[in-house]
Amino acid sequence: MKQSTHTLEISTRGKRLYEITSPIVEWVRQQRIQTGLLTIFCRHTSASLLVQENADPTVRTDIESYFNRLAPEDGPYNHNSEGTDDMPAHLKTALTQVQLSVPVIDGSLALGTWQGIYLFEHRTRPHGRQIALHLIGE
Amino acid sequence: MKQSTHTLEISTRGKRLYEITSPIVEWVRQQRIQTGLLTIFCRHTSASLLVQENADPTVRTDIESYFNRLAPEDGPYNHNSEGTDDMPAHLKTALTQVQLSVPVIDGSLALGTWQGIYLFEHRTRPHGRQIALHLIGE
Amino acid sequence: MKQSTHTLEISTRGKRLYEITSPIVEWVRQQRIQTGLLTIFCRHTSASLLVQENADPTVRTDIESYFNRLAPEDGPYNHNSEGTDDMPAHLKTALTQVQLSVPVIDGSLALGTWQGIYLFEHRTRPHGRQIALHLIGE
Repeated sequence: MKQSTHTLEISTRGKRLYEITSPIVEWVRQQRIQTGLLTIFCRHTSASLLVQENADPTVRTDIESYFNRLAPEDGPYNHNSEGTDDMPAHLKTALTQVQLSVPVIDGSLALGTWQGIYLFEHRTRPHGRQIALHLIGE
Repeated sequence: MKQSTHTLEISTRGKRLYEITSPIVEWVRQQRIQTGLLTIFCRHTSASLLVQENADPTVRTDIESYFNRLAPEDGPYNHNSEGTDDMPAHLKTALTQVQLSVPVIDGSLALGTWQGIYLFEHRTRPHGRQIALHLIGE
Repeated sequence: MKQSTHTLEISTRGKRLYEITSPIVEWVRQQRIQTGLLTIFCRHTSASLLVQENADPTVRTDIESYFNRLAPEDGPYNHNSEGTDDMPAHLKTALTQVQLSVPVIDGSLALGTWQGIYLFEHRTRPHGRQIALHLIGE
C-alpha cells in the first residue's frame, strides 16, 4: 500500500465554477495506482468543491445563479467587513462541501460519465486557491 | 491492509429517498474487516446520498417536500432541455452530496443508532443508479 | 501502514456551532502519522459537521441565523412529535454533512489558515454527541 500527496494551485477570476477534473485525473494517473481512494480537500472557507454535469454549460450557470439567489449579497448579515460577497461565500461553502473522496477502480477514478469535478469560487476578486490531494492505494 | 471494491446497482422509480443501508452493511460484513474506512460514491449528477433518520417515515417525506420547495421545478432556469425535473435534480445534488465515507470500527460501520444511508433520487422517470463502494482496512 | 480510531464525546447546550478543532488536532498528533487520511464522522441525524472560518465570530452567528431562516421551526412539516426544532434539525443536517475527511501531510492536518472544524448542533435541548474518528497512514 502506498500514499501520495500533492497541492493543486488554482487561480480564480470571480464567482463561478472552474473545472479541475483534468489536472486531478492526470495527477492520479501518474501515481500508477490500480485500486485506491483519492481525497480532494479545498483549504478555504469561501470556495468549495462540487461534482456536477460537465456536458451542457447552462447547468453550471443555472447552479451559479441559484446559489446567488439562495445566499444573496444583500442578506441580513452582521459580518460585512470583508465585502458584500464574503458572508454569502461562507454560506455557499457551508451548503456545498470542501472535501470530496473518489474511489480509484481498475486504474481510473470512479467518476460517472457526466461527472466533472469543480472548484466553486464564491469571491468576486481574483484568488489563488489551494486544493490538497491525497491518494492511498496500490 | 487490504482493499475491496464493488458496484451497487439501484433501480429507482421516481423522486424519493431509497434506503440502501442493508446491501451496504451486508457487503462490508462479507469483506471481514475489523478496522477500516468505507467510501460510498454515487456516479450521477441528478441523484445523491444522504444519511438520515430511519425510524419515523415522515422525516423522509418532509425532507423530500422540503427539497422540492427549495429547488422547485418552475424556477428561472435556462437548462430545460431534459425536462422540468432535471435542473432541480442538479441543484438538490449540489445541496446534498455524492460521496460519503463511514469508518469501520470493531467489525461494523460506525453508523449511529438512528442513521440510515439513503440514495436520494431526484428524477421522476425510472433510473438505474450505480453506487461505487471502496473499503480499505484489515 | 497503520490505523487508529477514537470516539470524541461532545456535550452541547443548544443550537450553535461548537469548535472541535483542538481535540481532533491533538488526537491526530498523538498517533504520530506523517502522511495519512483522517475521517470525522458524526453519529447523529440532528447535528452535523462544518468547516468554517475560525477568526471573526460574526461569521458563525450569521451562519446559525441563516440556517434558522432556511429551515425554520414553523415550516409545513408532518414530523412534529419530537418538538418544533427536530425537523429543521434533520434538514440542516441534510444541507451540511455528517462526514469530513482531511489529509494529513507532513505530520499535520491539511487545514487552511482560516479553517476550523465545527460540530453544528441543531437541537435546543442539551445533547451528548459522538464523533467517530478514523486515521489511516504512516
